[in-house]
Amino acid sequence: MNSASAAFGLHPQLAADTVEIDRWDCCRVLLMNDASYPWLILVPERAGARELHRLSPDDLALATAEIVRASAALERLFQPVKLNVAALGNIVPQLHIHVIARFEGDPAWPRPVWGVTPAVPYGAAELEARVAALRDAFAG
Amino acid sequence: MNSASAAFGLHPQLAADTVEIDRWDCCRVLLMNDASYPWLILVPERAGARELHRLSPDDLALATAEIVRASAALERLFQPVKLNVAALGNIVPQLHIHVIARFEGDPAWPRPVWGVTPAVPYGAAELEARVAALRDAFAG
Repeated sequence: MNSASAAFGLHPQLAADTVEIDRWDCCRVLLMNDASYPWLILVPERAGARELHRLSPDDLALATAEIVRASAALERLFQPVKLNVAALGNIVPQLHIHVIARFEGDPAWPRPVWGVTPAVPYGAAELEARVAALRDAFAG
Repeated sequence: MNSASAAFGLHPQLAADTVEIDRWDCCRVLLMNDASYPWLILVPERAGARELHRLSPDDLALATAEIVRASAALERLFQPVKLNVAALGNIVPQLHIHVIARFEGDPAWPRPVWGVTPAVPYGAAELEARVAALRDAFAG
């Protein structure tokens, strides 16, 4: 473990809003606790990272491959009309990448999801099933 | 020119909303005609492309490098507080990647920019200056 990863800590807002699903080579993989959308958040475990383009070339290649992996899993599981992939960070500065499966009937369609409706937390059984399905999809 | 690039045509909505600045190895580089934000749109010149994760690995690596190039140019020129990078496509299905320089005083801050305020078209001289500055920044 190098000093950068030793110092990494998940931002408290991300920790509060999500459930951890997995840890990949670059990113921690989180599920947004909002049953309105199948919504993953990838957080590069690099202390102080704020901007995608400032990752090292190696980390950026890893993060890109992990975005593909997350996108493909959401696509297989949910057959969305569209995937939304975004690194915004205007409110939570820690670099994090949203990967969201979108549907014509979802609460924000066709707008972006942010700030449209309050998060609808998963029920306990629903959350457990979703996390298990995602872990299976990542493995597949 | 392969058959995919021969068949590429810019979506009419993107053509209407933007000004072309450059053509890179993968993406056409457009400036959103909205003076509210320094806002680039990268469009992979690949016919039928809709999803980032479905680009070929080579094209995805090119597009990623071009996102970095666009981001770095915006950062040098405008010293934004944050860059927003996003591939949404819920309305315009042709794959396009937003790269937007954000500031605490901008009209949407800290929300995402989409749908917040109507676009404010650049004046002719302002547009010419901005395009020239961006082309310089890309070359630098």
